[in-house]
This record gives sequence, structure tokens and C-alpha cells, in this order.
Amino acid sequence: MFNAVDVIRTKRDGGVLSDAAIDWVVDAYTRGAVADEQMSALAMAILLRGMTPGEIARWTAAMIASGERLDLSGVSRPTADKHSTGGVGDKITLPLTPLVAACGAAVPQLSGRGLGHTGGTLDKLEAIPGWRAALSNDEFIAQLQDVGAVICAAGEGLAPADRKLYALRDVTGTVEAIPLIASSIMSKKIAEGTGALVLDVKVGSGAFMKSAQDARELARTMVELGGAHGVRTVALLTEMSTPLGLAVGNAVEVAESVEVLAGGGPPDIVELTLTLAREMLAAAGLDADPAKALADGRAMDSWRAMIRAQGGDPDAPLPVARETETVRAERDGFVTAVDAYAIGVAAWRLGAGRARKEDPVSAAAGVMLHKKPGDPVQAGEALYELRTDEASRIAAARDAAGGAVVIGDAAPANRPLVLDRVA
Amino acid sequence: MFNAVDVIRTKRDGGVLSDAAIDWVVDAYTRGAVADEQMSALAMAILLRGMTPGEIARWTAAMIASGERLDLSGVSRPTADKHSTGGVGDKITLPLTPLVAACGAAVPQLSGRGLGHTGGTLDKLEAIPGWRAALSNDEFIAQLQDVGAVICAAGEGLAPADRKLYALRDVTGTVEAIPLIASSIMSKKIAEGTGALVLDVKVGSGAFMKSAQDARELARTMVELGGAHGVRTVALLTEMSTPLGLAVGNAVEVAESVEVLAGGGPPDIVELTLTLAREMLAAAGLDADPAKALADGRAMDSWRAMIRAQGGDPDAPLPVARETETVRAERDGFVTAVDAYAIGVAAWRLGAGRARKEDPVSAAAGVMLHKKPGDPVQAGEALYELRTDEASRIAAARDAAGGAVVIGDAAPANRPLVLDRVA
Repeated sequence: MFNAVDVIRTKRDGGVLSDAAIDWVVDAYTRGAVADEQMSALAMAILLRGMTPGEIARWTAAMIASGERLDLSGVSRPTADKHSTGGVGDKITLPLTPLVAACGAAVPQLSGRGLGHTGGTLDKLEAIPGWRAALSNDEFIAQLQDVGAVICAAGEGLAPADRKLYALRDVTGTVEAIPLIASSIMSKKIAEGTGALVLDVKVGSGAFMKSAQDARELARTMVELGGAHGVRTVALLTEMSTPLGLAVGNAVEVAESVEVLAGGGPPDIVELTLTLAREMLAAAGLDADPAKALADGRAMDSWRAMIRAQGGDPDAPLPVARETETVRAERDGFVTAVDAYAIGVAAWRLGAGRARKEDPVSAAAGVMLHKKPGDPVQAGEALYELRTDEASRIAAARDAAGGAVVIGDAAPANRPLVLDRVA
Repeated sequence: MFNAVDVIRTKRDGGVLSDAAIDWVVDAYTRGAVADEQMSALAMAILLRGMTPGEIARWTAAMIASGERLDLSGVSRPTADKHSTGGVGDKITLPLTPLVAACGAAVPQLSGRGLGHTGGTLDKLEAIPGWRAALSNDEFIAQLQDVGAVICAAGEGLAPADRKLYALRDVTGTVEAIPLIASSIMSKKIAEGTGALVLDVKVGSGAFMKSAQDARELARTMVELGGAHGVRTVALLTEMSTPLGLAVGNAVEVAESVEVLAGGGPPDIVELTLTLAREMLAAAGLDADPAKALADGRAMDSWRAMIRAQGGDPDAPLPVARETETVRAERDGFVTAVDAYAIGVAAWRLGAGRARKEDPVSAAAGVMLHKKPGDPVQAGEALYELRTDEASRIAAARDAAGGAVVIGDAAPANRPLVLDRVA
């Protein structure tokens, strides 16, 4: 028989929690027998004391066991999913999911909403008139079989312990614990039933992990967890000091994704989409060339089918912001940096993101970059544009973005987009 | 403007909280604007990261400011109080308070109830028929003036932040943080309005602090806090590996205290009572000999007046347990140890203590020791007696106390009762 204070004390004093103690505390917390204030003290102790690989594996298993685990064995194609730890302008899921489906895989992409300065995939897609995020398990599996591509909200039944714990960590300063981040992500992805998984672990000012060392530790932890549960898992560490692409917001990111599917779009988005697609196809055991599926229109067909299957109209015009303000260069030179965090916060202030999970988001709000690092610029040229439906939001966004774009005398060295690969 | 997550993160990452942040978080927690789960995460971060002396001082000041501070300036005698960090058989407050009052000081002893294996002063006194623990502030000050000795429950108005925080720490594994222990004790004692304070910091198996090093750090922290708030404060580190005296429980400890006031009683109780009385009188600036006040009956007169003033009958018979079981020596030799923690748990199991703060306690239950370390013993002689009103409690108490009394071939070296003095 366990009690919460003993479990907390063990971790507080640097001890290792037994399998039975982990099973008990995760289950008791889900049932409400361990109180929020007890779990938050335990989460802080885990953050400061760490966990062994064995503890992390058991904690993840206990989170999976708190709910249902989907069975995708009825889907005839191999399944492959992707998870990004979240960045600014990271709309990669939107072109990637239909692209990988067009190459023969089934992509069971259960996504979330945004909180703070990073956007959420579902918030972006909800800018499309008619599109709905909620599917039943049966609808989800049927669409996976028929279309191959699904992006929808995770059902309440998957890892309920994680849903409760994540909300608690968010308000108690315990989000940044690598064991808890890894188990949170992997419990949902493993419960979702995918056979292969590619992790895009972001590093830099706009990411959750500011250092490559932390990102690499998180990546390794998650790859191990996936392997232990029979999910072929690969992680890429990718650059998130600069926003991805030019669009940061909801409707503007959908529009940029459609450009990529049409064969255009910013080169960093195209590069990362193709790189992740190749990893997903390899992990799923499929020999296909995603560049070809992008070029010949099959990825676009798959996108349109995916949007339609969830009630969306892929041809409907997207919402446009009522107010815009353009920020211009004060001098000649080269853009040496565009700070992802500052641009992310500006988009959030404009209405694209939310401060609390019950807040609505604006489909039209966001930031459109006109320059990226390496671009030459002349005084008076547009650097970026702030877009919102409420003029009163402009001032706060202008403050947040001030100083985000740095202009120097020489072009900066080219930074690679993919920093490392962990398999 | 502050928010809880930023304050938690600062401490979590090893930073120093600003005065304004401490004032805000203590006040917001008392008002309910900072939630329990946020304060418990902060408490765990404080436990693991520590606090600077400046942070502890401000935290204590904020706890005092959460409620009223009593004004004892109308009391004509100098005030002096004592606080013990809690031990097994620690009934010292009972003879000490009337003794020091008999020597000319006023002793404003606001006490608590027991939780776990250590007893509470109020629980002990409630074994006296008619005695009541609750006094209004006016009754408290009037008795302090008239009798000089008061032992009563702390009013709801003193340091409400501490009351709320202590209850939270108790269930979240965050009791053992020295900054939080020191600020909890000192905020109540400073708010109570005493001019001088003697701290009895217990060390050993039956104490909260198991090591002399931790006890010394706690003592130093509290002495500094007292000084900073104009309270002359001295701390003694005293031995708590062995129960104090022979009686552990409620009525049995009252009876042993009355023996001391009558000029008898176990030598360790007499020694510690006199030592603490001398410290209190010196801190209060009084030149009086407590041994004389004990010998000539003035301390007993003061006790009787104190008990009567709160409705108690000092001549009424005390409750006696219905069931007893005597545990006897299995061999000849010398008692080398009597483990305070094991005896404390046994008394608790017999009904003398409570597991949750809403539980009742039994006045009659407890353990009576017949031997103490150094005593010679023969096989078959009584070592201790278990007392309870419920026979069903005997087995658990017998298990808890098993092995508490160790018999060896030679008498152990004499251990001093007072280990150190911090002023």
C-alpha cells in the first residue's frame, strides 16, 4: 500500500520510484485519490531530481494504461506519424500529412491546440471554413483507411492521465522536466497506435528546448521509449531560432502550406517537409520519392481529400485581417537574425494564440515576414507585417516584435535546418 | 505585476525571490489567488533549492503580515516564551510555563495539537477535566496580566498564511524545508507579541531533525529571525533519541508534570525545565532562581491558578486507561537505548496521537517507561507498560515498540541532555 507523501519524499530525496509506486501514483492521480497539490510537488521533485530510464519507461506505460490504446491493425497501409515539440511558424504537419499519405502510408496525426507563443495545428486548420477537428474513433480509422491522411483532435480516451497532468504542469512551473515531456508526448503517440514515428525536436529561441544538449537528451529519451513499445522511432533536431517560412498565425500558415503543396512555398518549409517525409516513409518501410508526389500534384489531391473528409472546403477563401501595419527597415544591410520567440509572441498578441486554454483564437491574425536571415535589405523596405482584426492589439505586438529583426553589414553564415539525427 | 509560474520558475532555477515577489506570493496564496498546487510546487522548489537569509526574513515578515500581531505592551511584567520543535514525552511546557511565571515573567504560550508520533501540549492539558484551550485575545491578555502563565490555542487571526501553508506542506512532502520550518515557527511566535523567546530544538530519532547539523542550521536561522524582529531569541539543541521522562501520552504526561511541580519527577525533566527557565528569565532580564520557586511551592501555586483560570480542576482525578500490558526484559543487563521514535509511534497507536488533524485523541492512552538508558535490569523485570482504552490497539503498539528498548552488557556512556546553545 502506497501513500502520496512517501512517494513524493522518495523522489525528493533523490531515490528511484519502484514500478509499483509509479503505477499507483499515476492511477491514483487520474482517479483523483492523489490531489493536484501532491502531484505538483512530485512533478517539481522529478524536474529537479530527474528520473532513471527505467522510471521514465514505467511512467510512460502507466500513462498509456490510464486510457485506451487504439488498434490500427485493420488499416491496410503501414502507419507513420510525426510529432514536433512546437515552434514558431511550424505548419509542417499541414503539407507533410497529405504528402506522406500520397506516398502510400497512413498518417494518424492526432494534434493539439496552441498555448502561448507557439501555434497549434488544429487552430490553423480551423481557419478553413467548415473544417472540424473532432472525429470519433470509428471516423478516424475509416478516414485513415480511405484517405490515408487524418489530422484531428486526440480523443478524451487516450492517456487521460497525461491530459490532467499536462494542465497541472502548465500552471505550476513544471513543464520543463525532460522525463515528463518525453512521457507526455510518447504516451499519446503510442496510445494512438502508430507503427512508426518521426520526432521533430526543435532547438532555439522559439522552441521549448533552448539548448541542443537538452534537445538531444529529450530526443534520445523518446526514441528509447518508442523502441520499448514497438514503435519504430527516429528523431531529428531542427533549428528554431528563426520562424519557419514567412507566415506565423493561423489562416496565413494554411495559405503557405497550400503554396508548398502547389509546388512553391518558402525553401525552408519545402526542405523540412521533404526531409521529414523521407524519414517517415523509411520508418514505415515504404520506398517512395516524396519530391515526386509533391511535384506531380498527388500531395495536393491528398490534402483536398483530407480537408473535405472533415467537412472543410479547400476552395473557400481564407479569413483576411481587417487591420495591418508594416514595419520597415531603418538602415541598409543584411538581415542577420529574425528572433522566433519575439515573432511568436507578437503573433500571439495579435490574437493568433491564446494565454489560457479556454480562450478563442483569431483565424486572420498573425505576422507575415518579408525578409529572412541572409536577405539584403534597404532602408524603408518592409521587414514584416502585423495583421489583426482588432486595432487595439497592434501596439502590444509592435512592442513584442521590436528588435526581432537584426540588420548587420554582412550576410550571416548559412545555418543548417537539421542539426542532428537520433535513431 | 507577478504571476505564480514566474515566481515558481525563479526558485526552481536556483534564483533569489525579490521582496516584492515574496510579499505577493504569500498574500496571494492566503487570499486564494495562488492555488494550492502552485504553492506546493514552490514549497518543493524551496526545499530543494534553499533560500537566502534575506528571503527567509522577508517570507517570515510576509507571513506575520498575513494576520494580526498581538500587542502585549499593556502587560506589566516582561514576557518570555518557549517553543520546542517537538519530541516524544516532551511535556516541558507544562511545568515550565507556571515556573517562569512564578519567577516574575509573563509567559504567553500559544500551543498546538499533536500530529503523528509527537504529542501536542493542548492535547495533554485537555486530559484535565474542565480545562479549555480556546481563549479570546482579551481573555488571553487578562490572564497573562493576572496569572502570568497562559497555555492556550493560537487564535485564527495569527499568521493565517502559515496555517494554510502548514496544512499543505503536511500532505505534499514539503515539511522538512528549513526555511519553511523556521518561518512557520517564528511568524507565529513574533505575531504572538512575546519580548523574549527560548527555542528548544530537538535532535535525534524522536525529533523532526535527525542530525545535529540540520538542527543547528534551523536554530541559527530562527535566532536571526527573532533578532531581526526585536525578539531576544536563544536556542538550545537538546537530545531526543530517548523519550523525555517516563510518561508518553496525555494524562500520564500531566501527572508527571505535576510531580515535577511538587518537587519530584524524573531527573531529565527537572534538568531541562530548570535550564529552559533560566534561559527564559535571563532573556526577559529577570534575576530569579527557578530552582527555589520549584522547591518552595510557588511554581505549583502558579500551575493551579493557570489551570483554574481556564476552567480546569487541578484536583480532579485524571483519566486512567482500561487496558494495560506490561513488556518485560528477556535478559539481565543494562538498558543501553530506548528509541524515542518507536515509543512515540507506540503511544500514537494506543490512541494518544492522531493520524489526521480531525481525529480525536484518547486522554488515558500512552506508554509508561519503567527503565531508561543506564538502568540495570533483570530478566522478567518490567521495561514499559502499554495503556489504552481499546484492547484492539495493543497488538499494533506492541509491534511498534518492539526493539525500542535495547539491553546490553554494560551501562552506556552518559549522554548530555543539552547539546549546544545558539544565541
